Amino acid sequence: MKQAETTLYIVGAGPGDPELMTLKGMKAITRADVILYDALVDERLLQESKPGCRLVYVGKRKGKKEFPQEEINRLLVFYASRFEKVVRLKGGDPYVFGRGHEELEYVQRHGIHVEVIPGISSSLAAAGAAGIPLTKRGVNESFWVVTGTLSSGELSNDIIHAAKSSATVVILMGMTHLARIAEMFALTRSLAEPIAVIQEATWATQKIAIGTAQNILEKVKEGELSSPAVIVIGNVVLESSLLSLREELAKLKVAV
Amino acid sequence: MKQAETTLYIVGAGPGDPELMTLKGMKAITRADVILYDALVDERLLQESKPGCRLVYVGKRKGKKEFPQEEINRLLVFYASRFEKVVRLKGGDPYVFGRGHEELEYVQRHGIHVEVIPGISSSLAAAGAAGIPLTKRGVNESFWVVTGTLSSGELSNDIIHAAKSSATVVILMGMTHLARIAEMFALTRSLAEPIAVIQEATWATQKIAIGTAQNILEKVKEGELSSPAVIVIGNVVLESSLLSLREELAKLKVAV
Repeated sequence: MKQAETTLYIVGAGPGDPELMTLKGMKAITRADVILYDALVDERLLQESKPGCRLVYVGKRKGKKEFPQEEINRLLVFYASRFEKVVRLKGGDPYVFGRGHEELEYVQRHGIHVEVIPGISSSLAAAGAAGIPLTKRGVNESFWVVTGTLSSGELSNDIIHAAKSSATVVILMGMTHLARIAEMFALTRSLAEPIAVIQEATWATQKIAIGTAQNILEKVKEGELSSPAVIVIGNVVLESSLLSLREELAKLKVAV
Repeated sequence: MKQAETTLYIVGAGPGDPELMTLKGMKAITRADVILYDALVDERLLQESKPGCRLVYVGKRKGKKEFPQEEINRLLVFYASRFEKVVRLKGGDPYVFGRGHEELEYVQRHGIHVEVIPGISSSLAAAGAAGIPLTKRGVNESFWVVTGTLSSGELSNDIIHAAKSSATVVILMGMTHLARIAEMFALTRSLAEPIAVIQEATWATQKIAIGTAQNILEKVKEGELSSPAVIVIGNVVLESSLLSLREELAKLKVAV
């Protein structure tokens, strides 16, 4: 039977830099007959596919909305029913706001064998790209990763709870609500609450803005940052090695 | 100057499976003159180092405590002052409960250039290894990663807050407090609150126990799981593809 031999690999492509792909994910890419890929996947990864591999784009369409999830699900079954090795390549990690599990459940119901290969989640790598440790002894004991925007377009209630906690808060897909988020943390924590915004983390085009609940909107405007970006809130932001560098430079200037 | 040429790479080795190392991390390993590595690093990764590369173990010593952080810091400076390419290889991600930033700050103060290469954090990969998506539309909107045990040995206060939230809670280094954690979630959420414990995620020796706040201690005992392990709490646990598989098997048995 054709279907029994098929494996669909749901692969996390990592945060952006193609070198942050895992060895296991890369092996799946080089062996694939078909690759269905997202808007957030670096095209250099696709160049590693074998000759004749079908590349199927299922990301955002210019001036249009994303492919509906149902359409992607149907395409996955379509290809997995016709080819042996099919890769579903997703930005970040398939299990972190990636709808990876929805795709897994759908194709499994069609008798297709699925393997999930994790990737480095942008939710963690974005802080790292800004030189910010997500946890540090004596500074924090936890971090909370929240989606900024629900499918309804509303702000997640979990952000309100997170603001009240002492956790480092990492918000994905929150840029449209940045003003409200900053205000919420200003009220609940303080105006001086450190906030970093990281756009296109680990890509060559990466942009970073670091500020406080009071001034992050200006900093984002100054730095010309836009969506999608990751928002990191908490005292670990002050630990950023970029800030140390900036302080070092400031000191040098004073010394001169 | 010798030191200006040196780069110390702080590399995340990922959760266990050596194929979950990144391409970038692997490149650093194959070029290293010295590798200082942890107890949680798979030795197969070290086999990829070049001939003559010095391998320095700085993990737990049999029957003794871990190397003190100060001693590791001094060793990093010692080697980075004598060799050009030094790799500090750490399990998981260096910036998630890994003290990576402490090491970075220490060696930077000695004029050594540092680059951090992220790895897949066990805090995320453990759930994935148990077929559990950390987030799923309609099930949850966030996940909270907490250390179970502070350097004082005490349970983190953030766990109490996390239990009150609707977030998926991921606890690292919490196995010694599992009874108290289960009790806390039983009281704050419910006796039926789903809990998974994953030991040595993604390694061949991986063990998984899935249960509820009421029975997870028995399940862990039955499965002979021990520390270190990752604890995942919340309704996403019910989405585990392992559970579906189990249900499918149960149905087949009924059908026969």
